[in-house]
Amino acid sequence: MNWLDEGALYSSIGLFLREDLGRGDITTQAVLSRNVRAKGRFVAGEKMVVAGLEAAEEVFITLDPHAQIEAFVADGEEVEAGKVIGRTSGFADVLLAGERVALNLLQHLSGVATRTREFVNAIEGTQAKIADTRKTTPGLRMLEKYAVLLGGGVNHRHGLDDGVFIKANHAALAGGVGTAVKSTREKIGHLHKVEVEVASDRELKEAIDNGADAVVIEASAATELIKTAREMSAIVAIVVSGAVTKENVRAIAEAGADLIRVNSLTQSVRAMDISFQIQPG
Amino acid sequence: MNWLDEGALYSSIGLFLREDLGRGDITTQAVLSRNVRAKGRFVAGEKMVVAGLEAAEEVFITLDPHAQIEAFVADGEEVEAGKVIGRTSGFADVLLAGERVALNLLQHLSGVATRTREFVNAIEGTQAKIADTRKTTPGLRMLEKYAVLLGGGVNHRHGLDDGVFIKANHAALAGGVGTAVKSTREKIGHLHKVEVEVASDRELKEAIDNGADAVVIEASAATELIKTAREMSAIVAIVVSGAVTKENVRAIAEAGADLIRVNSLTQSVRAMDISFQIQPG
Amino acid sequence: MNWLDEGALYSSIGLFLREDLGRGDITTQAVLSRNVRAKGRFVAGEKMVVAGLEAAEEVFITLDPHAQIEAFVADGEEVEAGKVIGRTSGFADVLLAGERVALNLLQHLSGVATRTREFVNAIEGTQAKIADTRKTTPGLRMLEKYAVLLGGGVNHRHGLDDGVFIKANHAALAGGVGTAVKSTREKIGHLHKVEVEVASDRELKEAIDNGADAVVIEASAATELIKTAREMSAIVAIVVSGAVTKENVRAIAEAGADLIRVNSLTQSVRAMDISFQIQPG
Amino acid sequence: MNWLDEGALYSSIGLFLREDLGRGDITTQAVLSRNVRAKGRFVAGEKMVVAGLEAAEEVFITLDPHAQIEAFVADGEEVEAGKVIGRTSGFADVLLAGERVALNLLQHLSGVATRTREFVNAIEGTQAKIADTRKTTPGLRMLEKYAVLLGGGVNHRHGLDDGVFIKANHAALAGGVGTAVKSTREKIGHLHKVEVEVASDRELKEAIDNGADAVVIEASAATELIKTAREMSAIVAIVVSGAVTKENVRAIAEAGADLIRVNSLTQSVRAMDISFQIQPG
Amino acid sequence: MNWLDEGALYSSIGLFLREDLGRGDITTQAVLSRNVRAKGRFVAGEKMVVAGLEAAEEVFITLDPHAQIEAFVADGEEVEAGKVIGRTSGFADVLLAGERVALNLLQHLSGVATRTREFVNAIEGTQAKIADTRKTTPGLRMLEKYAVLLGGGVNHRHGLDDGVFIKANHAALAGGVGTAVKSTREKIGHLHKVEVEVASDRELKEAIDNGADAVVIEASAATELIKTAREMSAIVAIVVSGAVTKENVRAIAEAGADLIRVNSLTQSVRAMDISFQIQPG
Amino acid sequence: MNWLDEGALYSSIGLFLREDLGRGDITTQAVLSRNVRAKGRFVAGEKMVVAGLEAAEEVFITLDPHAQIEAFVADGEEVEAGKVIGRTSGFADVLLAGERVALNLLQHLSGVATRTREFVNAIEGTQAKIADTRKTTPGLRMLEKYAVLLGGGVNHRHGLDDGVFIKANHAALAGGVGTAVKSTREKIGHLHKVEVEVASDRELKEAIDNGADAVVIEASAATELIKTAREMSAIVAIVVSGAVTKENVRAIAEAGADLIRVNSLTQSVRAMDISFQIQPG
Repeated sequence: MNWLDEGALYSSIGLFLREDLGRGDITTQAVLSRNVRAKGRFVAGEKMVVAGLEAAEEVFITLDPHAQIEAFVADGEEVEAGKVIGRTSGFADVLLAGERVALNLLQHLSGVATRTREFVNAIEGTQAKIADTRKTTPGLRMLEKYAVLLGGGVNHRHGLDDGVFIKANHAALAGGVGTAVKSTREKIGHLHKVEVEVASDRELKEAIDNGADAVVIEASAATELIKTAREMSAIVAIVVSGAVTKENVRAIAEAGADLIRVNSLTQSVRAMDISFQIQPG
Repeated sequence: MNWLDEGALYSSIGLFLREDLGRGDITTQAVLSRNVRAKGRFVAGEKMVVAGLEAAEEVFITLDPHAQIEAFVADGEEVEAGKVIGRTSGFADVLLAGERVALNLLQHLSGVATRTREFVNAIEGTQAKIADTRKTTPGLRMLEKYAVLLGGGVNHRHGLDDGVFIKANHAALAGGVGTAVKSTREKIGHLHKVEVEVASDRELKEAIDNGADAVVIEASAATELIKTAREMSAIVAIVVSGAVTKENVRAIAEAGADLIRVNSLTQSVRAMDISFQIQPG
Repeated sequence: MNWLDEGALYSSIGLFLREDLGRGDITTQAVLSRNVRAKGRFVAGEKMVVAGLEAAEEVFITLDPHAQIEAFVADGEEVEAGKVIGRTSGFADVLLAGERVALNLLQHLSGVATRTREFVNAIEGTQAKIADTRKTTPGLRMLEKYAVLLGGGVNHRHGLDDGVFIKANHAALAGGVGTAVKSTREKIGHLHKVEVEVASDRELKEAIDNGADAVVIEASAATELIKTAREMSAIVAIVVSGAVTKENVRAIAEAGADLIRVNSLTQSVRAMDISFQIQPG
Repeated sequence: MNWLDEGALYSSIGLFLREDLGRGDITTQAVLSRNVRAKGRFVAGEKMVVAGLEAAEEVFITLDPHAQIEAFVADGEEVEAGKVIGRTSGFADVLLAGERVALNLLQHLSGVATRTREFVNAIEGTQAKIADTRKTTPGLRMLEKYAVLLGGGVNHRHGLDDGVFIKANHAALAGGVGTAVKSTREKIGHLHKVEVEVASDRELKEAIDNGADAVVIEASAATELIKTAREMSAIVAIVVSGAVTKENVRAIAEAGADLIRVNSLTQSVRAMDISFQIQPG
Repeated sequence: MNWLDEGALYSSIGLFLREDLGRGDITTQAVLSRNVRAKGRFVAGEKMVVAGLEAAEEVFITLDPHAQIEAFVADGEEVEAGKVIGRTSGFADVLLAGERVALNLLQHLSGVATRTREFVNAIEGTQAKIADTRKTTPGLRMLEKYAVLLGGGVNHRHGLDDGVFIKANHAALAGGVGTAVKSTREKIGHLHKVEVEVASDRELKEAIDNGADAVVIEASAATELIKTAREMSAIVAIVVSGAVTKENVRAIAEAGADLIRVNSLTQSVRAMDISFQIQPG
Repeated sequence: MNWLDEGALYSSIGLFLREDLGRGDITTQAVLSRNVRAKGRFVAGEKMVVAGLEAAEEVFITLDPHAQIEAFVADGEEVEAGKVIGRTSGFADVLLAGERVALNLLQHLSGVATRTREFVNAIEGTQAKIADTRKTTPGLRMLEKYAVLLGGGVNHRHGLDDGVFIKANHAALAGGVGTAVKSTREKIGHLHKVEVEVASDRELKEAIDNGADAVVIEASAATELIKTAREMSAIVAIVVSGAVTKENVRAIAEAGADLIRVNSLTQSVRAMDISFQIQPG
């Protein structure tokens, strides 16, 4: 992550800690004295692609700059159940205060990376790439998109300002795919490409005739439209979106898609089983 | 939601929009002229308990105070597939700018409420209540806990400052359940109760003898320990936590639990199928 | 203070300095050259319980991370007039810029701790504790409540979210003490106790019959109602509030109060006499 | 107050409410239903100069823009015990949530204004004015200085950037009063006057000879030095500071002081007795 | 401007006002009573393209939501000397407090728009467009880029995240233009085009061979390299940058440039002569 | 710069970087690997007074606290074309990310300092001083006023709260210069002087008779009014403002002005020619 990503990360971690800590951890304050030291280990409870260790480390550093943290795997690495992926040591109250936020991030982001890896593996050997969507968790987009990269996928747009994507809604309001692409071509900066959703041969033709750089096809209609698109243009990028599943993703890739957008990389994510084991010391 | 919840909501919505909009929606700016008006409808694609309509409304209001929004169901209501749950009208660029953030919130929060309702229904007729945990999505705790209420559940702690809960980790670091409860009793304010995790008859006895107000029992050991706890004390609240599933929740409730904490209310949430249909007007 | 307290403290100190410094200390800039070094000593001008040294140190550290500060007593310690309680050395402009904010905090917070200690001493040997109220200085609650702890008192609620306290106003609007306690019992989380203000034998009975955990009695009526309360219940906590003075506090404690809330711990606080003596060096 | 004062006020009020409300008023949420309406009256419990009504109004408006508020006296007006100084109506939860913050401000600020008025009255008929100092409550300076104006006093510096005041510490570090005034005269902007603390005839002479516009004299030495100063210069402003009390203030004024700075206007302030009486409706 | 632009604008205006007002306009407070009303007119002192009226209006609205403002020309319109471009009425203290910030913005932004228009006019009839650079005033980029649009220019990148532009520095560090373009092509998202600076026929060829979408040529070498570029590729966009002046811009456009980037649109901007005339009423 | 200036500087630099970097430098991320190191040199392209090196350094430090920076001249020093004024080394992505913001600041602020120096030199040997105005770039006032000091000028007011300056507008609304000065004298704090704009002998007399400390005269009428003013009062400060140019400034100084305010110190500033040369290492 670059400077700004890191800046955004630090700022988010602070918000997440405040959300959980409020005025402070009253249980730990009542149970423990201030100077008790402890060690904690993050242990994978199932096979997974790890993501979020860097964020988890940041949680403890935010609470105490002197906390010691050691990662045993890099973000993006695949581990088996039972693997100790990292450990931390410091004051017990710091470990207990950061435990839940660190785990919530780590489990969720590892879920994103693991699912991404499954889709990437499913199309291995094809020319296609697995991409994410904007169906992310509000407030976690940067972290989730980073986990997609760790899983081996690529990022589609980071936001509405990060690339032109004319959806069916836009086309309908503008009077058709052709009009929309044409209007965009004229107004958009010279550094942006134009991507447009198409649902029929006619729309495909309108898109390509008006200079679209990429066309987006619904998964259900993918096989046929991909073939037509390839016949119409050698250079237009072909993107498939919508109801993409582990079952149909390989067929879509083999049909010739360049990019396959998968909602479930970042939506309805299953949190990975990771535990944090604390002991004195 | 009260004033502060609303304040926090507004502030979060602003962050979520900035995350998605960055410097602005360059597609819509290129495709549409500024004054095109449109209507949008939120349509449920499956049976669900609706949650997040208030937040979705706030998304459009934040973008344009003059946007018109109408909810056809209240947050917390159960609807069937096909139900139009709300509609909005205004400038097309406002609807397109808010669509994704509104849907991301609505689908996720309805997922939380719907799953909560399923657990609540599963123990209908018992004295037990379904409660959430701190295993929430960082940044969305307030909204997720609100969705749990809409689903019929109750909230456990909002954060580490919102009630005393001595976990096994605390007890281990403090030298045992008894010592931990005793120490807490002495230090904690008179308005707080003391809840403690116990894993054996001995710990149960230590907890009750030292004045714990509530004991938390792992789901796997629930049936037996609940029985023992009831015999030891008529007034201690019995909380079950851990591997609670739709399959075992009723048995736990019938065994006499007062409160059953379910991780999956807010973890690994399945986003509900909700679409936003836009048309000119 | 824990992490969040410290975070809040640092952030407040920054605000306080900006309030006093505006665009900068134009006198010192005109009078002194930049590199003049100086030493300063905080000297107690009367007997007091010191509170706020940690905050005062933070003032100078905020202005210059390289400022040297040494505390000769710990916050919470009692000192006699003439005692040098701490000293600092660094650039003269830093000392002059921080002097007033540091003193304003130190004098006020020592005033809170000193008055608390007087009340605590006044009931020495009884079972009662001295507690604060929400009658604090807006913006300084955290620091004032910390000073109460240093003086030997305990904190009542930190805010309206930190415990249930049904006041006469609540009861009146809800239709009586009994109704209010009953309604609260049903709605409030299982980790919270219920405290209620009562002004007569009838209200006391309604409170206890409906399961109140603590009752709050006006100081003027304390002696009699405490006796009645003790007869009605062995376990209800008895809190006295209102016109508590150094004159009547011991009688109230001896009558059997568990907790005595004193407005004047944090209201109409007398600033302690502390000076800051600067010399070259 | 002007625009920025108002901006700062609104922002402070928000902080003060968050400090008291945290995650929300759990008692009121449990006791009352959302739509109960109520009325509240602020009643003076003693004779006082009212200050802070505008701020108190802002508290309720911040919580609910539809709250109705009516002031029966203007800030700065003197009232007798028993006077209803304002009333408010709206949702009961809004009134209960704002009550404490509103009262804490109103009682403290009225304390400042009332004490100021007492000093102003004590020197009635002389040419002197009563001024405040920087011994204010951190975070409340703007409001306290406004209350001083309402009490009939004038404001000395709002902060270290708001005027040149060479104190004894500055002079000592700079090598004497004369050197300090001279250096300042050369460096300071042409729109600022130079005020300097003097403790002897010699320092007075040095100050005036080097072009000081105002001299500050300790209260204990006031009478004599004022006389000397008047003899030395017809135009230098004479300010008295330090141990000024209601007992000695008139003598100081009559000795010829132009401005008398009183620490206790804003330090060790006694909160005025004001109550907030709520009833249904 | 869209929602976020407006949000950013409002937030900037607040900062600009605080910068100028500090603790408030002490002159106006001393000279005028609060309720004096006044009218103000913005008058162009020379021929110009107006830009910033919307921002100037926002200044007064921020100070007082009830201020009345009327624009007589739209932003982007060209006016002659003497033209009254807008007027405002409200409280005199509001007009006097906003005057300087409003003028500073209006004069500077009109300077940007006017200079842009001059360059646009200079290439009228050619296929080229005038574009801005990142040589903007820190903190004013959004407003300055908006003024460029009003002047008839187009925006190049809003920031380093808004399009790929490989400069000579990048190429040097990466081992040449060819390597840099190739590496970028592989790593960059499919919605971004690749623009690269070239300084010779060889670099031009490397760029085009590796799939650059646009090449940037120094103004001094423009004529020759444009010709070569056109011969090498029909579709690569040709951008000219660097020492572009009103004298050479037309020749560059006629040589076939698609986009001409002009530093001086936003650098060393001459503030337009605009006055604000206030009168009672 | 003192603490607060530095605080404000750091905070501004962060905003300026965010403005330019958005979600990150996508070109550098695509072209370079993370660990490439580089060196950069700032080279003056013309004769100038350097200002902003400290700010430029802060840019790189903000991006990476480990960046190495070395200034070869002090801010305020005059250099010839070709002079290397500073160099920096660190990771290449850090240098490339900070380059534009650093240059934008350095070129603009050096422009301010250089122009100031030119005016200062033009009046060398007279008693007059060159001062700035409030015609600054919104958001950059503090930095621009600092550059004026570096150029040898003095600062007039930092903002509307930093000194009393009664302009013609004020006087007109108040009923004349005399009334305005008189009213101000009565209301303004004793540490402020009163400056007033005058346009005729009559206004000059009204100002002086009512106790103005400084009078401001339009450049066009300067010679004559300065003479009159000097005859009327030996102590009133004489300030000239308005159409001051390098051509007429010496005559104004020689006519006896104490302070000459020059709009163009900070308005229509010409950015100095400074380049940043990067090479591997």
